Amino acid sequence: MTAAGTAPATAPAVTAEAYAQILQFYAGHMQDLDTGAAEEWAEGFTEDGVFAQNVKPEPWRGRTHIATSMRRGLDRLAERGVQRRHWLSMVVATPADPVDGADDTVRTRYYAVVFETPRGGQASVYLSTTGEDLLVRRGARWFIKHREIFHDGA
Amino acid sequence: MTAAGTAPATAPAVTAEAYAQILQFYAGHMQDLDTGAAEEWAEGFTEDGVFAQNVKPEPWRGRTHIATSMRRGLDRLAERGVQRRHWLSMVVATPADPVDGADDTVRTRYYAVVFETPRGGQASVYLSTTGEDLLVRRGARWFIKHREIFHDGA
Amino acid sequence: MTAAGTAPATAPAVTAEAYAQILQFYAGHMQDLDTGAAEEWAEGFTEDGVFAQNVKPEPWRGRTHIATSMRRGLDRLAERGVQRRHWLSMVVATPADPVDGADDTVRTRYYAVVFETPRGGQASVYLSTTGEDLLVRRGARWFIKHREIFHDGA
Repeated sequence: MTAAGTAPATAPAVTAEAYAQILQFYAGHMQDLDTGAAEEWAEGFTEDGVFAQNVKPEPWRGRTHIATSMRRGLDRLAERGVQRRHWLSMVVATPADPVDGADDTVRTRYYAVVFETPRGGQASVYLSTTGEDLLVRRGARWFIKHREIFHDGA
Repeated sequence: MTAAGTAPATAPAVTAEAYAQILQFYAGHMQDLDTGAAEEWAEGFTEDGVFAQNVKPEPWRGRTHIATSMRRGLDRLAERGVQRRHWLSMVVATPADPVDGADDTVRTRYYAVVFETPRGGQASVYLSTTGEDLLVRRGARWFIKHREIFHDGA
Repeated sequence: MTAAGTAPATAPAVTAEAYAQILQFYAGHMQDLDTGAAEEWAEGFTEDGVFAQNVKPEPWRGRTHIATSMRRGLDRLAERGVQRRHWLSMVVATPADPVDGADDTVRTRYYAVVFETPRGGQASVYLSTTGEDLLVRRGARWFIKHREIFHDGA
């Protein structure tokens, strides 16, 4: 036990079941985004969800605003014929104080990278970021109540 | 419950146990590929497995054909001294109707990126793709019965 | 059963619980590294931990040496204003013979890629590697007893 003796205590982790659910929620959520389904993607936020980025002056507040803002971005991208892929990984998930009577409340910290490929062109890294979410579970579904994305290099 | 009230029902997810098994199957399967072990990699398909790509006119059909076709590709790559790494992540796994009396049958949708590094050179992104598999489990092992890969930008 | 009939036996896998713990350990460990917390990152090794790389003549031996060596590297990086992100994924984890009376002993093989973003600049792939760890669990915490990293292209 000496090896661990000097190490600080760590936060309790979520169960394997919750962790697998969260990874799959993130995967499906990003697949919605990258197929251009802004509205389905916005359904992954709570109705009062917040989406903040360190490169934007103001967060997007509420599912409706999130959907319409992302719709504009995706339409511009589609016009340019660029396919983006959002990879979200390296997820640390820790139980959080319950909010809004959710069945589960979890904080996550993670990395996200965006790859992009122009039509007929070469794939490349577009962006490297880190993120922090407050997630709530209602029944079998997870929702983002608060997301903050930090763009590297900004 | 209002937050979830307007959201569509989602497909049931596989268990954490199955999800962890599938992630590890994918990891080991790609490690086989990237070490040049085409035959071991082909063992990850069922004997009647199919490997289709949107950039190929015809799918590869059957484990033997898959092995010999991949062997040719890997040999060319080895001659050029290029090391590729296939990353497969962002996996959504959902239970599917049983096929061939398998112990488990699962559909997956995922992202895959290929990095490559020439000998003495710089790593870069070679390719961004998405994929869809039909997986079957027999005892402790998973197999790909059908795989379709969609290259971005094609 | 014919599909699996010709396939070789595979190593037993770790449980979903252990797999989720290991993925989260790796995520948190790399987050420590990329925020410049060399000392916290070094706490992820056992006191007698070893960190070897195929591009270094000698491994770093012992947590103290690992911490001071990484501190120098991170300080140089901070001076240059470069943000690196270490992604570790594609993890295969198999139970290993117990060492040092650990509660769990596991071998892993994985891929790791480093992205980097200069201040005000564009993200890119810096490095593609593979790795092999010997991990031990003491209570709720995982530690690296031995890590070997193989840089692609070296």
